[in-house]
Formats: sequence, C-alpha cells, structure tokens
Amino acid sequence: METPKKIKVALLGVGTVGTGVYKILTRQREEMVHKIGAELEIVKILVRDRKKERPGIPAELLTDCFADILDDPEIQIVIEVMGGMEPARTYILEAFRHGKHVVSANKDLIANDGKELFEAAQENHRDFLFEAAVAGGIPIIRPLKQCLAGNNLTEVMGIVNGTTNFILTKMTENGMDFGEALKMAQELGYAEADPTADVEGLDAGRKMAIMASIAFHTRITFSDVYTEGITKISADDIRYAKEMGCDIKLLGLAKNTPEGIEVRVHPMLIPSNHALASVRDSFNAVFVHGDAVGDTMFYGRGAGEMPTGSAVVGDVIDIARNIQYGCNGRIGCTCYKEIPVKKMEDTFNSYFLRIQVQNRPGVLANIAAVFGNNQVSIAQIVQKKAVKGRAELVVITDCVCEKNMRDSVMILEGMSIIQEISSIIRVYTEEE
Amino acid sequence: METPKKIKVALLGVGTVGTGVYKILTRQREEMVHKIGAELEIVKILVRDRKKERPGIPAELLTDCFADILDDPEIQIVIEVMGGMEPARTYILEAFRHGKHVVSANKDLIANDGKELFEAAQENHRDFLFEAAVAGGIPIIRPLKQCLAGNNLTEVMGIVNGTTNFILTKMTENGMDFGEALKMAQELGYAEADPTADVEGLDAGRKMAIMASIAFHTRITFSDVYTEGITKISADDIRYAKEMGCDIKLLGLAKNTPEGIEVRVHPMLIPSNHALASVRDSFNAVFVHGDAVGDTMFYGRGAGEMPTGSAVVGDVIDIARNIQYGCNGRIGCTCYKEIPVKKMEDTFNSYFLRIQVQNRPGVLANIAAVFGNNQVSIAQIVQKKAVKGRAELVVITDCVCEKNMRDSVMILEGMSIIQEISSIIRVYTEEE
Repeated sequence: METPKKIKVALLGVGTVGTGVYKILTRQREEMVHKIGAELEIVKILVRDRKKERPGIPAELLTDCFADILDDPEIQIVIEVMGGMEPARTYILEAFRHGKHVVSANKDLIANDGKELFEAAQENHRDFLFEAAVAGGIPIIRPLKQCLAGNNLTEVMGIVNGTTNFILTKMTENGMDFGEALKMAQELGYAEADPTADVEGLDAGRKMAIMASIAFHTRITFSDVYTEGITKISADDIRYAKEMGCDIKLLGLAKNTPEGIEVRVHPMLIPSNHALASVRDSFNAVFVHGDAVGDTMFYGRGAGEMPTGSAVVGDVIDIARNIQYGCNGRIGCTCYKEIPVKKMEDTFNSYFLRIQVQNRPGVLANIAAVFGNNQVSIAQIVQKKAVKGRAELVVITDCVCEKNMRDSVMILEGMSIIQEISSIIRVYTEEE
Repeated sequence: METPKKIKVALLGVGTVGTGVYKILTRQREEMVHKIGAELEIVKILVRDRKKERPGIPAELLTDCFADILDDPEIQIVIEVMGGMEPARTYILEAFRHGKHVVSANKDLIANDGKELFEAAQENHRDFLFEAAVAGGIPIIRPLKQCLAGNNLTEVMGIVNGTTNFILTKMTENGMDFGEALKMAQELGYAEADPTADVEGLDAGRKMAIMASIAFHTRITFSDVYTEGITKISADDIRYAKEMGCDIKLLGLAKNTPEGIEVRVHPMLIPSNHALASVRDSFNAVFVHGDAVGDTMFYGRGAGEMPTGSAVVGDVIDIARNIQYGCNGRIGCTCYKEIPVKKMEDTFNSYFLRIQVQNRPGVLANIAAVFGNNQVSIAQIVQKKAVKGRAELVVITDCVCEKNMRDSVMILEGMSIIQEISSIIRVYTEEE
C-alpha cells in the first residue's frame, strides 16, 4: 500500500471544543486512512498565549500568529473553534480568500453573519460546514440539508440549550429554585460565570436562527428571533404545570406559516407525555416536521468537549472526502427564498398566567371582562389559594393573538384589584 | 436564467414507496432546481402489469421491460423500490454495469448481498445509496456514515419495526392479547396478511445487519443476526414487566465488543423511563453510542409511503449533487475491517422467566439449585399466584452467559416439578 496522502489541518483555538477535536483526530488517525483514503493531520494551532499549560497538546504546534496558518499553502482545512465575533469572522473570511476550507462551531457568528461567510465560501469555491454550531454532537445540519431535502419542512422545535434544560430539570425534579439550580449548574461546569447568554435564551436563539435558515431556505439572523429566558420561572409555575400534566421547558420554535416565518425562544408548558418533555438534564433534542417525513426527532448531547468535537470532526471528514473527489463547494448556502419574518405580536399562542388579586366579589368578572374585550378567550380559570384578602388565580387561555394578550396584560396591570401578574408562560398546543 | 439541466430518473416498482417517491419528486420539481441546480424528472417506471389502474401515475411512463430503462443512456439514476431478492438484485447489478446510479429501499437484498452490490457500484464508479432501507424516513445511514464518522461507535440499539411496536403498544396500553393486536394492525394496514417477517423479527434483523455493518465497519449479513419474535409475548408478561417498572419492546441490538460483534433482535424488558420505552405505535427510534458523541437517538416514522419516499428522495438529491459536481462514488462501502461475530450463546444477558411449578415444599430450592449449578445467579424470585397445587414463579437473573441459561432451562424443562416455562425474555441492563 502506498503512503496515504496527508490532508493538513489547522485549529483556531484550543479551548474545550478544540481540545476535543485534537483528541479525536489523534486517536482516529489510523482509522481515517480507511475512512477517507488520507491522513488528517493537525499541523498548527492558533492560541493567544503560547506559554499557557495545555496538557496533551504538543507545544510545537502552537502559534500566536494567524499568518503562519494563512500563508501555509499545505493547510487545506481551518477549524475555527475560538468563538466570539472578532477576530473569528475576519479569520474565516481570510481563510476562504486563501483557498482554505472552514469548519466552524461558532453559532454567534453564523447566526449574525452567515450570509457574508457563505458568500465568501462560494466565491472561493470552498466548503463551509458548521454541524457543531447547533446542538453539539447531534447530527442536525446534515439531516436538514441532505436527508430531509425532499421535504417541505414546516416546523423545527427543540431544546437546544443544555444549561437551561439542566436548571429546569433540577427545579422540576428536585424542587430547587432558579438560583440554587443555576449555582449547581455553574459548579458542575454546565453554566458560565456570566450565564446571561444561556439563561436569557440568546444562545438558543442563535441556534434557532441557523436551523430556521436551513429548514426554510430563507436567511434568518439572530435579530429576527424573539427571545425570552427562564429567570422568571418559579417553583410555583412548575408545580402548577405539573398539576396540569405539563413540564416547563425552554423551547426554540421555528415555523414556516403562510403569513411568514415565526422564530422564537421562550419557556413553554409542554405535555409531560410529549417526547421533548422527557429530554432531561443537559441533553438536547430537535423535533423536525416535514410534509413527507412527518415528525422526526434528533437527540443527544448538545455541548461538551467530545460531543461537539464529534460534530466538528464529522465535518472535517466530509471536507476531506470532497478534497479527495475534487468536489468542494458541493453543498453551499441553501437560502434561495426570501420569506418575511412574522412579528411576535402577530403569533398565536395559548397562555398560562398566574395572577395575584384582591380576594373580593367581582374580581373574577372584571378580569374575565378585560380578556373578553380583547378577544382573549379563556379555556380555564382556577383560584389556587386565598390568604388575607389576597388570592392567586391561574388562567389558561385558548390559542389567541399575542397582541391581544399584551393589550389585556397592560390593562390588567393598571387595575387596582390586581396586585401582581406573577407569570405569563406560553402553552404548547398541537396544531389542528 | 438558462434552462436548468435535467437529470432523468427511472423507478423500478410503483407500490407504496414508489408512489411516495413519485409524489414527492413531482411536487418538489421546481424546488429541486434551487436545491441542486437541476430538474429531476421521472421518465420511466418499471411495472409488472401495465394495465393495472394506478391513480395519479401517468400511464405513458410505465414500461414492463427493464431493457427500456437500461438502454436509455439519458437515465442516470435508477430507484429500486420493487423489493424482494430477484429480479431486484440482477436489475441493480445491471444498472451499475450500464453506468447508472442506484437508490434502493430493499433491506432484504442489502442485508444479504450488500457486499456484491457495493463492489459492483465501486467497479463502475457509481453511487449506491439506501437510507430508506433502514427505519424508513429517519435519517440514520447518513448520520452513521458521515456525521458520526469521527467516532468509534460501540452500540446501535433500536426499535426498527413499526408493526411489532404497534402490536406491543396495543397489548401494553389497551390490554389486548397478541392475536387481537395483530388483527388490528392488519386492519390498519400496519401488518401484512402474512406477518411472519415482522412478528418473527426478520425485518428488524435485516435492518440491524445493515446498521451494524456501517457502524462497525465490518460486513454483517442477515445470517449473522440472531432473531426472536414477539409471538410468545403474553399479557401476563407485559403486566409483570409493568410491575417491575419496565415495558416490553422488540429491540434490535448491535454491539462492538472486544470479543466480537453481537447483533440480535429479540423482545426485551426495558425500563419505562428509558427513551426507547416511550416510542409508541408504529414509530421507530435508533439509539447510537459513540466514544466521542456519547448517546444519540434518531426518531420518526419507520415506514409508509411518504416517510420512506422522503428518505429515497434525499438519496436521489445527494446523487444529483454528486452528478453536478462530478464526484459520484464519493462515499462507498465503509466495511474495511473483518471482525468476527459472537455466537448468541456467548452473549451475556439478564433474564426474566415465568415458570409454572407444582406448589409444594422444596420446589424453590430445587430450581435455585439448577440455576446455581449452572453459574446463573438470581437477582430476584417471586411467587406470583398459587392455585390448585400450581404456582407461578417469576425469576429475574443477574447478567449471565446465554449458554448457562440455556443449560439451566434444558434441565428445568426435564424436571417433574416444573409444568411449563411460560416465558424467557431478556432484560435490558445498562453496561457498567
């Protein structure tokens, strides 16, 4: 057997994901020859500080100068796992201009500047793959772009943030409150010191923008996504949800409707027997509905060194196969439509509200009148507890227009009989 | 815009799946131009009887002569959805020799003759794709071959037969017995008039052979798969399983162990909180474990006109993209190892046994002695009911060697105190 060809690769960044990629490519080195007919070798790793200790990473591969990678004509694939907007964006664009293919796990960047990156890839006939940017190790980008390409996809729904799913699981199963569960997530390394991007739904929103763009063939950027986090979810909300046979999950929802694309991230009550309700801890799952395939679901680890590394390496192998067959650029941007994005206030939802009211005659009638006057029909209203002149009402609405709900809430908030609207959480309803 | 290139396609067979493929390709005709830069057109359909009424299928496309397709140099892709071993096998081999790419949904054929088909594809530098052969619409072949290619995959486990899962669901949730549930499945079109291939686990066994071959990079044929069906599962078994917090599912199991490949299909008790336990009715799900990605699961419809059609069309699109980029044969056979297959008697399992015994002193001790003498350690033994000198015992063993269990059972069957061994069902245990 002749010496196999070598395909040389550079890593930009060697944090959690980069380390995973390095480990996988090292231990799969011999297998690769059989899988793709070539060796994959990491020859350079870009880091900010070459002096930092990195156990298991050979110091001679490290460079702090991007030009070392850019100007090395033997490097064909650049793996961007440094994260953040800049310099990642510039590095990727430069890599394309220098004839290199790029694998990226950078959801922040792709959800904002996907169009520009794709155009640069296309101009230079290079591959740009990013399976790891959404739902970590779970294969979802390739299934959407390839396996399900015969479908008109109408809905993508998922639990795409492991941190918040871990927190909600602990609140549900162990009765923790949000603060306790967040602290535990931070101690276990599931949440960062500044947990904003996770707990406010921003991270999930970026992933939904990327998936919606691919599923519906129209460019959705992060700014198109309505996001609402889980910081206001209380133990009471979770208990009441349970009484109704539901769990509360932070869901990403993207729908292609006749009136435009809906894409949003917010907490939702979901029936406990729904497949997504059983996704626990830091696991992720993505539900996809297509006109031919019906319902499908993809489940696995949405983050972590090795699962995310697995997705990156899958992309690297794909590009290596393209290099071997001379067909790079085979699957580029698939956004060939321009579909408008629906405003959040034009969406229809069922709502769960928890309202603290004065416990006196006529209160219920007054509240019901506000809803009625604003075309919000009520499915259920229950008085949960009454102490010292104060009562707690739980209201479940039918599927109504968000705008009408917002109008109702604004009026309710101005009424003296209402002490506080403690929660407003949307409720998942099956489409007819 | 110039007139898009046309890629011409022929269908072999237009039964359930073929009709689905025709419908999808027809309604996606305009979209295809954007997705692959070419039109996909079905120009010929091979049928046995041209006279038969086929609503929605244009009669002018029909031919009963395979040579019409083979000798048409404009047809680049042949979609084999006729099923069965012959003439499907010969037609596919001939198609390759005539320079055509092939998509097949034929699990029977691939599980037996996969090697020969792949070799013919490779010799002729043609594509051979078969996503639809396993788990219908669920993307699983491409994820295994591509997305998870950076992993050393160690386990594939799944519910890959919708008919039996429907029957077991009805037995579990509606208290039906096997016969009633089978009858209902037949009335709903989920089971065929001769249900043998489904209820005896043969269909699932073929799918496991195909997935094991891909996951472990070694050729597994159907004859390597141990199969056991669900015809002996009784309402009592399901009730006792429930008492133990378990459901009974027909599971396909493939493992790459240091002693060789295990690949088998049989009923199993699985904890009700396991993700596969919540797969109901005719849905399928495949669980995959890789050293990098950890646990992943793929869920959806495992059969039916449109779901299976979706998988076929995904493959056709893939081949069309390869044609556009001149890189057919890009991913061929990935069986580059030769790993032995373990004998079923050398596998280790935990077992659930339901035994009818004479209800008299010493019986338990005698039975326990048989197990003990054969290295079968018992985790639990419960006497369930005793009437008229007869008692029912339920025995759960630890994880023991199948051979030792078989020896024990043979001895027990010869003992006068034992009236009947009503059930022997394996129990799913998490590996340590």
